[in-house]
Amino acid sequence: MKDLLRPEIDTLAAYSLKEMPCRIKLNQNENPYELPATVKQEIVDLLAAERWSRYPPFVPRAQLDQLAAFTGWRADGVLLGNGSNDILQLLFACVLDKGRSVVISKPTFTLYTLLAQAVGAVVHDVPMLPGFRFDTEAIVQAAGRHTASMTVLCSPNNPTGTQLAAAEIERILDGTGGLVVVDEAYVQFAPYSVAGLLERHPRLVVLQTFSKAMGAAGLRFGYGLMAPSIAGRLNRVKLPYAVNTFTLIAAGVLMRRWVEVRGWIGTLNAERERVRAALATMPGITVYPSAANFLLLESQVMPPSQIFERLCADGILIRDVSGIPLLARALRVSIGTPEENNEFLGSMRRAL
Amino acid sequence: MKDLLRPEIDTLAAYSLKEMPCRIKLNQNENPYELPATVKQEIVDLLAAERWSRYPPFVPRAQLDQLAAFTGWRADGVLLGNGSNDILQLLFACVLDKGRSVVISKPTFTLYTLLAQAVGAVVHDVPMLPGFRFDTEAIVQAAGRHTASMTVLCSPNNPTGTQLAAAEIERILDGTGGLVVVDEAYVQFAPYSVAGLLERHPRLVVLQTFSKAMGAAGLRFGYGLMAPSIAGRLNRVKLPYAVNTFTLIAAGVLMRRWVEVRGWIGTLNAERERVRAALATMPGITVYPSAANFLLLESQVMPPSQIFERLCADGILIRDVSGIPLLARALRVSIGTPEENNEFLGSMRRAL
Repeated sequence: MKDLLRPEIDTLAAYSLKEMPCRIKLNQNENPYELPATVKQEIVDLLAAERWSRYPPFVPRAQLDQLAAFTGWRADGVLLGNGSNDILQLLFACVLDKGRSVVISKPTFTLYTLLAQAVGAVVHDVPMLPGFRFDTEAIVQAAGRHTASMTVLCSPNNPTGTQLAAAEIERILDGTGGLVVVDEAYVQFAPYSVAGLLERHPRLVVLQTFSKAMGAAGLRFGYGLMAPSIAGRLNRVKLPYAVNTFTLIAAGVLMRRWVEVRGWIGTLNAERERVRAALATMPGITVYPSAANFLLLESQVMPPSQIFERLCADGILIRDVSGIPLLARALRVSIGTPEENNEFLGSMRRAL
Repeated sequence: MKDLLRPEIDTLAAYSLKEMPCRIKLNQNENPYELPATVKQEIVDLLAAERWSRYPPFVPRAQLDQLAAFTGWRADGVLLGNGSNDILQLLFACVLDKGRSVVISKPTFTLYTLLAQAVGAVVHDVPMLPGFRFDTEAIVQAAGRHTASMTVLCSPNNPTGTQLAAAEIERILDGTGGLVVVDEAYVQFAPYSVAGLLERHPRLVVLQTFSKAMGAAGLRFGYGLMAPSIAGRLNRVKLPYAVNTFTLIAAGVLMRRWVEVRGWIGTLNAERERVRAALATMPGITVYPSAANFLLLESQVMPPSQIFERLCADGILIRDVSGIPLLARALRVSIGTPEENNEFLGSMRRAL
């Protein structure tokens, strides 16, 4: 039976997540807040009145126009996906191939490497500099040396929280020849987006999602912003109806009522700084600055797995990232509500 | 800019659908009936009470167990997709590759060839026999001659309505060495499913969907049934969270309350036979038997495009499939409500 699938499949690691029962869930960088009941009610009322027996529109014009207004980019340069992972997969399938190269700054979101391997591409890792800063020059050099078809950057970077400056992205664009994909999954927590660079950089692709700051991981709504010529060509390969009727309705209402909702970002960013300050006072703990809704911490004495287990025993689930190269002493914690964060900090103090 | 993507991308035809305003929509084989209001209400109430800020379960155990009961197959052999196209794409990506071959019986759903081309596979078409019967022996021979990695069969076949007998599927399984994918998108309208063959045929994959008979095209819910060993290996490549919270909830309720809902299938099948009988009396029209919720008709005198246009002028949208090889004189019409079907038949009579 082994040879029914392509032999490479068996060499791939799967993207996996250990699901554990817990009281406080700080392991997936989800937004701990829920949309206001009035917003949810408007969405479900619209949904109840919609026809579910029909396919969604082949081209969801209204949502594309809304996203254009929401992001400041043009509607014909927007691709909608079933989460931004869907657009990532499309990009990897359309740009990469056996023998083609991709440059990835590491440590970062593990899915990039899995997607690259699934299409047989050669992955060139560029390690971050001490303090988890992007090594822009090394990225440019690696892309040049391997004539990379694509460079993938997560910014703010999961799991380090680091954001690339617009000037750094431009340096990478100017110094490389392939596509430069900037995954801005956490951008609404950050001080800026680099989507403004799209106008003068036709090799830039910016990915964003409603799964984090937008509070809608359950909806699966992501999108890519790019030159219309690239969007049009990716659309040739993209499956139709990637985003279902519910998600189209919900995303539309969420964008329209975003001003009522977005206050939670200020709260979460303030909490991030409070949690960071508290962690910084803990013995043997190093915590890094973050432009996202999570913090990377390193434990200099106690093994990360032991901290993870002790928090688990308190019903608090964070992410043990110590299996990732360069992160042997690291854990990642999502920012929760103030009460959740207090429980996390209390549990950390007891653990250490 | 042309060389940023793989050169093959530009040679692909896109899956496209011309969206046209119309009063009566009989072009996408959708179910014309809507779920009962009480069922929709239960779903939206559950949805309103659910947390949208959280990712769906990494493994949606409850829905997998329900599907196992619903299909008679085992839960660890079920893969969920964002529509069954999602599972098709996964299969094509994991089984095919440059230089690998796939056998496809034609005419059929056009997406198969597009997916095969997107991964660079070689497509071997096997034409159906006169009267649009599957040419089982030619399929077996083509698969053997080209040592095909996969054979793809749509049954009941879109757009011909033909269903393969279980014995024919077994003949193809026994006579070939690769995966045999049977797309049963329309199976709930047909007299039988071949999912029962999975137990003794580990190279069989059966795809089903909630988009047609289940009346939920807007939900995007499809699934593949296969040997657990294949499901497990495909899961290594599959993106997580393919099915969102809404669709998981809706699919769960729909399966639980299916007995209240499924009566529409009897109505639609009876209507199909009534429409077929009426079309058969029209001069210059040949209509074929169908095990699905659509009919294939051929016009011997008037060009199909002209019939299509005349129906359009009456606000009735059907599918002009005359651009597909072997279907130069053909149109496909979905079965609507009795009123819609009467309007279609009246418009046909006037057109001819």
